[in-house]
Amino acid sequence: MKYCHDCGASTLFKIPPGDTLPRHVCQNCGTIHYQNPKIVVGCIPEWHKQILLCKRAIEPRYGLWTFPAGFMENDESIEDAALRETEEEAQATVALTGLYTVFSIPHVSHVYMVFRATMGEEKFGAGEESLEVRLFNLDQIPWTELAFQVIEETLELYVRDRAIGQYPVHVGTIQPQRKS
Amino acid sequence: MKYCHDCGASTLFKIPPGDTLPRHVCQNCGTIHYQNPKIVVGCIPEWHKQILLCKRAIEPRYGLWTFPAGFMENDESIEDAALRETEEEAQATVALTGLYTVFSIPHVSHVYMVFRATMGEEKFGAGEESLEVRLFNLDQIPWTELAFQVIEETLELYVRDRAIGQYPVHVGTIQPQRKS
Repeated sequence: MKYCHDCGASTLFKIPPGDTLPRHVCQNCGTIHYQNPKIVVGCIPEWHKQILLCKRAIEPRYGLWTFPAGFMENDESIEDAALRETEEEAQATVALTGLYTVFSIPHVSHVYMVFRATMGEEKFGAGEESLEVRLFNLDQIPWTELAFQVIEETLELYVRDRAIGQYPVHVGTIQPQRKS
Repeated sequence: MKYCHDCGASTLFKIPPGDTLPRHVCQNCGTIHYQNPKIVVGCIPEWHKQILLCKRAIEPRYGLWTFPAGFMENDESIEDAALRETEEEAQATVALTGLYTVFSIPHVSHVYMVFRATMGEEKFGAGEESLEVRLFNLDQIPWTELAFQVIEETLELYVRDRAIGQYPVHVGTIQPQRKS
């Protein structure tokens, strides 16, 4: 952030009085521009024993699989966001059955919140951001073609919890993946 | 947002191609400036049967009470944020005992995430953003002097759950308060 979005003047990256962290501060009007983590919200849509996954038609990770999820917008709740993303990416209408995971991803400053959800009917399709949308049995999940580590860790928990039929809320942190 | 923070040129508020919502788009370099909800993280610090509350030394709601909570920063987890805010506002070191509430507040585009926490020792004090920090018995909570509706609703749940000794994760939405 080089310029103030209120007055267009240059900003300086410095610690404002009374603060502990450097911020982008306007040299003209003094506005402090905070930058904060973004929330990604999604759900795991269930249709009987299967779950619905989307093949990404956008970067990053074009062509890899995810459950429906995306950036939460202003003026909506996390539930609104999960339903909207599921409509947009998978053209599916779901009923949310409970918050399932909350993962912080500090190295990209995201917080991922995922619900469990049930599909009322077997109706879905590829939205603009998806190449393909498909139902998968749990033993068919394309583990080596998942888009993000948080998707993999969430689905690992889900498979484990489904085996015992209990779905507590999981809270965790995704660490950067070491390349082998 | 009137100016692009990458190049300083004027922005237009319009729907970019392929999007569904209007965004601030730079007329010069085309950068799309997304605006997303902010995460507030905090905790309810427990010391035996009491909880620790802080009297705000900052606006909004100067002079009213809250538990330690504040905006999550980039590069941290929600747990990091809860511990940091508790150190900053209440000069207390706590151990988090679990995520307790997740409240969307769509009309201000915030998501509030609150943990339960235990204090290892009876040591606390007023940080820069607090006028006073005090332990309260649950029947002494200053209900008419709480800073925000989300604080009130969270503490109402907490008092109710403490009576039965069970603390499920609560997920909800705060609606704007109707003025009587």
